[in-house]
Amino acid sequence: MRSQINYPVIGKIIGLLLIVEGIFMLLSLPFSLHFGAPDLEKITLFVKGRDFWPLLIAAAITIFSGLLLFLTYRKAIKAMSKREGYIIVTLSWVIISVFGALPLYLGAATSSYADAFFETMSGFTTTGATILTDIEGVSKGLLFWRALTQWIGGMGIIVLSLAILPVLGIGGMSLFVAEMPGPTPDKLHPRITATAKRLWGIYVLLTLVETLFLMLGGMNLFEGLSHAFTTMSTGGFSTQDASIAAFSPYIQYVIIVFMVLAGTNFTLHYLALHGKLKEVFRNEEYKYYLLIMAFFSLVITLVLIFNVNLPAEEAIRNAVFQVVSIVTTTGFITDDYLLWPGFLWMIIFLMMFTGGSAGSTGGGIKVMRQLLIFKNSFLELKRIIHPNAIIPVRFNGRAVQGNVMYNIMAFFVIYLIIFALSTLIMSSLGLDFETAIGSAAATLGNIGPGIGGVGPVENYAAIPLAGKWFLSFLMILGRLELFTVLIILSPTFWKK
Amino acid sequence: MRSQINYPVIGKIIGLLLIVEGIFMLLSLPFSLHFGAPDLEKITLFVKGRDFWPLLIAAAITIFSGLLLFLTYRKAIKAMSKREGYIIVTLSWVIISVFGALPLYLGAATSSYADAFFETMSGFTTTGATILTDIEGVSKGLLFWRALTQWIGGMGIIVLSLAILPVLGIGGMSLFVAEMPGPTPDKLHPRITATAKRLWGIYVLLTLVETLFLMLGGMNLFEGLSHAFTTMSTGGFSTQDASIAAFSPYIQYVIIVFMVLAGTNFTLHYLALHGKLKEVFRNEEYKYYLLIMAFFSLVITLVLIFNVNLPAEEAIRNAVFQVVSIVTTTGFITDDYLLWPGFLWMIIFLMMFTGGSAGSTGGGIKVMRQLLIFKNSFLELKRIIHPNAIIPVRFNGRAVQGNVMYNIMAFFVIYLIIFALSTLIMSSLGLDFETAIGSAAATLGNIGPGIGGVGPVENYAAIPLAGKWFLSFLMILGRLELFTVLIILSPTFWKK
Repeated sequence: MRSQINYPVIGKIIGLLLIVEGIFMLLSLPFSLHFGAPDLEKITLFVKGRDFWPLLIAAAITIFSGLLLFLTYRKAIKAMSKREGYIIVTLSWVIISVFGALPLYLGAATSSYADAFFETMSGFTTTGATILTDIEGVSKGLLFWRALTQWIGGMGIIVLSLAILPVLGIGGMSLFVAEMPGPTPDKLHPRITATAKRLWGIYVLLTLVETLFLMLGGMNLFEGLSHAFTTMSTGGFSTQDASIAAFSPYIQYVIIVFMVLAGTNFTLHYLALHGKLKEVFRNEEYKYYLLIMAFFSLVITLVLIFNVNLPAEEAIRNAVFQVVSIVTTTGFITDDYLLWPGFLWMIIFLMMFTGGSAGSTGGGIKVMRQLLIFKNSFLELKRIIHPNAIIPVRFNGRAVQGNVMYNIMAFFVIYLIIFALSTLIMSSLGLDFETAIGSAAATLGNIGPGIGGVGPVENYAAIPLAGKWFLSFLMILGRLELFTVLIILSPTFWKK
Repeated sequence: MRSQINYPVIGKIIGLLLIVEGIFMLLSLPFSLHFGAPDLEKITLFVKGRDFWPLLIAAAITIFSGLLLFLTYRKAIKAMSKREGYIIVTLSWVIISVFGALPLYLGAATSSYADAFFETMSGFTTTGATILTDIEGVSKGLLFWRALTQWIGGMGIIVLSLAILPVLGIGGMSLFVAEMPGPTPDKLHPRITATAKRLWGIYVLLTLVETLFLMLGGMNLFEGLSHAFTTMSTGGFSTQDASIAAFSPYIQYVIIVFMVLAGTNFTLHYLALHGKLKEVFRNEEYKYYLLIMAFFSLVITLVLIFNVNLPAEEAIRNAVFQVVSIVTTTGFITDDYLLWPGFLWMIIFLMMFTGGSAGSTGGGIKVMRQLLIFKNSFLELKRIIHPNAIIPVRFNGRAVQGNVMYNIMAFFVIYLIIFALSTLIMSSLGLDFETAIGSAAATLGNIGPGIGGVGPVENYAAIPLAGKWFLSFLMILGRLELFTVLIILSPTFWKK
């Protein structure tokens, strides 16, 4: 029954991706030139900072490797089955991280390749967990590339979650794609192309608008672009050690708005841009997404005002910023929530298991799954009382198919099992309880800051080497909706 | 469609239960007389210790209340639907705890009625969480009643999980009842009677055998019976502050064996007693139950030997005892696992989410559900690869029905949601992170000792009052397989 895996086409596509990645690396060069460290300027016009040559060499290696792959397999036929799809998705995230780590490594921004790989995987998976202890000391060209990895990752995620995964049958996302207007051809390729073009357009547009708003608040082009890249991708890398706390309240409000937009299903942006606002606000996931953030922001605001005695505006801003940042899995920080009363940071910790909307750049469990699971749990009581009635979960007015609900529950259960085992693995490496669960939750959920030793004002530098590799694995596992990676790791997949 | 709820029959049954409870209270009087405090002996022959009158008065109140209820509704017709079933189950646990708390309260063993209620609910739910800070200072008659509450709770659970809940359609337990040999009449009443008689016989038999073995190890009748009561019910109340650490290694080994037996599906004991050992060892849940305990005992033993440098026998005994105690949800302790390396007590903590076998006196999620969830998660990968194939979970060689699997997943998800929300509630009362999650996990899972401030050598005395009431609620929620209680709390249930 099963056909041979079409490795040439996998090679060809990965080759293409590497070429594109190399070109993106070159985009960081202007910033390297502009911000070059003055003492090095004397040597030659082109060796500015510690980032020009590293970026150029890394780009050359990446483009050359990509070309080699692409040319070798240029004649590959595009006959792709789902099996090639799974392999390409996981492999492309791994391989672009392997090459993407080169600038940081060659530029000595990190002390080891493992650190550079962790940082880059954290970028491409839009996690935002960092091992850099002195971000402001890293040259601007490298920081720009670091922000770009998140933006590229976000592009990948949009096309992945709204075009590729539904075709591969993963994650119950078909619920959303069905609502995406436009042609829905059976073939993988034309569908991906059509969907990707539309949604990338929106992604680019929102990024530019945010950059503009950030620059109006006093950021320069470098800061504006970097932060717009990492907001729209729900990544959370900042160019400042203090994250967004380093910027004005205006900037913080702008970023709140764009984090909310980035955590929204991009199909809804498409609808909104076509004037179908009614459909947007009728969407159950969207309503639940806004409601959950509003509710917990309110709770935290009230405690911060009446218990911690913060001024009202600051309390509201800090509460909303942290809540939105965690729910959307961005991971920017303006206040150290671990210094809040324990009750409040436990809310923050629990919200790490919410995640953005399906079809957004947000990671984690996703609002849609959580909502359906809550609904289904409540209905299960009804089913026990009326054992002969068939009571399906309804979503946006339609009954959710049994196998979709099954898949969503399996996802939730597997997510929690992996989380639990990961805390065990991290604690076996010597981490304390809170750091173990914090690092596992924050990387699996693609958030970034966690609790304990990887809290909002801490970083991942002190995690032991084996832990860094394992957390890198958790990032890609969470980012690719678990199943994509787990399927490849299962023996069934490789059986003829 | 729906008929009126038959309240008279509920009153009649609760009345009967109270009469039985009062009679059980009287069983503690001989121990009160025997161990009476010498300085009080002078006053009168019958006022021995601080427990004789409290027990007698409590028994009188309980029996009188029971008689009143029973006689009022003696003419109630036994026409029962599932609705009355749900109410009776939850209500009986609450009401026997309300009355069962009287001896402790009247005997001033606790400082408040809330504490007495917590302790008694912890007894009847076979949890074993205690608020007593000086157990050895409490008079023996009261301690005997405290142990009896767990033994009575265990009796209740056996008949509940193997006879009542399957009829009420809760918890996917029908998987087991189908295997129970003997008549399976449709009517609720004859079935419960037949099943209960058989399994209670086994329960009583095992309790007596354990008492004998404990007395051979040097315990007196009071200690032997008390500990046999709380082992076979997987309760975990001890008559010693140091729990089982106060006794010899021989006693500890005896208790390990009987904890394993108590955490086994009682249907398997029935089969074993009828010589069907082959069927017992072919049972998948039983194999998984033994395997999981063996595996983690081994891991912990090795670390205790090579890392903590404990002598081999002590390492094995401590590891096996704590693992078996937590997995079976008994909660006896011979070693403070919180002093072990963090990695080991995280294993212990995760095992709080395993629970005993279905159809045992153990609480928690249950081995059977965990096993089916693991199997199903693995199969979900296969289902994604082969979307058109129907791949059911198989258990003991038979396909598990879709709706049963659905129910089990819903149970697991609701269990974890309740756990998460409970930690939030407990931390809002001012508890630290570890104590909040420890107390929630240990009471919802009917275990007893948790982590943090409610760890193995700590107790629940310091929990704020509101927290004690809430944890009491978690105990009954967990003990009655969530749904039984949640259904009554849902508005749907009360709609005509």
